[in-house]
Amino acid sequence: MDKILLSHGSGGKLTHELINKFFLEAFSNPILEKLDDSAIFEVASNKIAFSTDSYVVDPIFFKGGDIGKLAICGTVNDLSMSGATPLYLSVSFIIEEGFSILDLQRIILSMKDTALKAGIKIITGDTKVVEKGSADKIFINTTGIGIVSKEINISGSNAQEGDIVIVSGKIGEHGMAILSEREGLKFDLEIESDCAPLNTLVSNMLKVTKNIHCLRDLTRGGLVTALNEIANQSNVGIFIEESAIPIGDGVKGASEMLGLDPLYIACEGRLICILPTKDVEEILAVMQKNEYGREAKIIGKVVNNKTNGVYLQTEIGGTRIAEMIIGEQLPRIC
Amino acid sequence: MDKILLSHGSGGKLTHELINKFFLEAFSNPILEKLDDSAIFEVASNKIAFSTDSYVVDPIFFKGGDIGKLAICGTVNDLSMSGATPLYLSVSFIIEEGFSILDLQRIILSMKDTALKAGIKIITGDTKVVEKGSADKIFINTTGIGIVSKEINISGSNAQEGDIVIVSGKIGEHGMAILSEREGLKFDLEIESDCAPLNTLVSNMLKVTKNIHCLRDLTRGGLVTALNEIANQSNVGIFIEESAIPIGDGVKGASEMLGLDPLYIACEGRLICILPTKDVEEILAVMQKNEYGREAKIIGKVVNNKTNGVYLQTEIGGTRIAEMIIGEQLPRIC
Repeated sequence: MDKILLSHGSGGKLTHELINKFFLEAFSNPILEKLDDSAIFEVASNKIAFSTDSYVVDPIFFKGGDIGKLAICGTVNDLSMSGATPLYLSVSFIIEEGFSILDLQRIILSMKDTALKAGIKIITGDTKVVEKGSADKIFINTTGIGIVSKEINISGSNAQEGDIVIVSGKIGEHGMAILSEREGLKFDLEIESDCAPLNTLVSNMLKVTKNIHCLRDLTRGGLVTALNEIANQSNVGIFIEESAIPIGDGVKGASEMLGLDPLYIACEGRLICILPTKDVEEILAVMQKNEYGREAKIIGKVVNNKTNGVYLQTEIGGTRIAEMIIGEQLPRIC
Repeated sequence: MDKILLSHGSGGKLTHELINKFFLEAFSNPILEKLDDSAIFEVASNKIAFSTDSYVVDPIFFKGGDIGKLAICGTVNDLSMSGATPLYLSVSFIIEEGFSILDLQRIILSMKDTALKAGIKIITGDTKVVEKGSADKIFINTTGIGIVSKEINISGSNAQEGDIVIVSGKIGEHGMAILSEREGLKFDLEIESDCAPLNTLVSNMLKVTKNIHCLRDLTRGGLVTALNEIANQSNVGIFIEESAIPIGDGVKGASEMLGLDPLYIACEGRLICILPTKDVEEILAVMQKNEYGREAKIIGKVVNNKTNGVYLQTEIGGTRIAEMIIGEQLPRIC
């Protein structure tokens, strides 16, 4: 048997075989193995972070990752952006009848490896199978739980006039990698997804200062969307120096060719950090020591609320408003 | 605009409009309204229950409920089956491009009403849109968090020789309601889904005794699958008196007509409870006072581990082994 059948989702014998043979084998830990209706665990702090995302990326395998790696990183990163230490994940699969069991195994192994790297445990799950044509291959939901220490208060609504904006690395690589894979495009410079778990980077940053005001990962809608969300939540203006934004030559070239704006293209392993000037030097140093923050740099600053919105200082010295994207630039990039 | 567009899932302006206009409006609470990457909250106990399910039911509207009500009840019930008090839910939508916004609103309102009834708050979420033909209308994942008091220890692995098995009401109504809706079948007796949040029933039960060994809701695979899971986890035999199992005339008639076995048909508002004989009388009394336990009754008992498995005492006095379902009796019933 090499294909997923409807019976794998029936809750009966085949479902139990799938769970025992693949999921328990890969994700094995004592909480998961109890196989009750809920996973039960104890936490060391009463302040909990909770985040969910469904992943529908197309194609499911791409340069630099796959839907499984993405599903772990995405939720680990959302938890990290609240300053939480990610602890546990639930994983829920919706699989199209006829899906290759080998591909499922490959995805599960990738989830196992990524969870190990991020130090997070998968403790509960669900599998549904729908008829051929009722879903596109496989969709994965992950929902995560983390704990936050009392003295940390990171939120999109905390940006303050005078704060500095740092980006952790080159933008747009994930979205462009997905697009080129999907459309079969070949560029001179191969583009690889930046998909990565950022929890270690964030925990290192929080070791040097608890003064971080905002963290956000640059997923759907990219850098400009994340900045607009924060500008709205905090009711501030954010000035960004366009020439300071790190963009790789591959993404730059591909964007020009395709008429896309890299400032709106998703990353899955980049974040922005907004914090007071006095802590900037120390945080940059610690970020640059981490494998996912090596190219961290300052790209702008927060100004007062009379200018609520995101402003780009262009290379020739002008300023333009960078609004949130309206239409769909790239569907199903995560 | 009356249809969901790909742009509603882009993370840009339309996504934010959808979130603000529909989700925040319906599910409004201070934790959700922060709109950060994770929801942050504090809990009163360190012992946490965590459960996830994706709902792919077809049709999405049916007699007695809809995919939204089901998505709330299903996860509330999974938490309750661990003896937890359900507190918070995440909700994640995968929507097919072109889906009716009116239908989405109807589903959201139903989720709002059910969450209110169950006393649970929706505090974080996600929305993805996939191209027409890449999903069937709408899939919903809910993941829930509850707290468990220290003295409660309910698990499928806790059944003990001598324990009594109670079922909370008539079985098979949900699965049969879905099937008749989907296939356009008309029966003399109309069948309505039993879909309901069981947390109040369970919390009332736990008020009279903390000695409950196992609780399980009878979803995919129905009564016999749930009993087999417990028999395996606890390494015991479970004897059930077939004539004692409450089955409504509608489900009985429809099952005979369609050649289906109601013992394997899913419920979404029924549970089994396994506990020591001495507590049975009191627990039955409190169950029967609750709207979702009115027809609770004893259906069997736990025997020793030499007979690991589920045994049905038939009406004419014989005994047969009731194994877990192998194939798929009814796809997409939840």
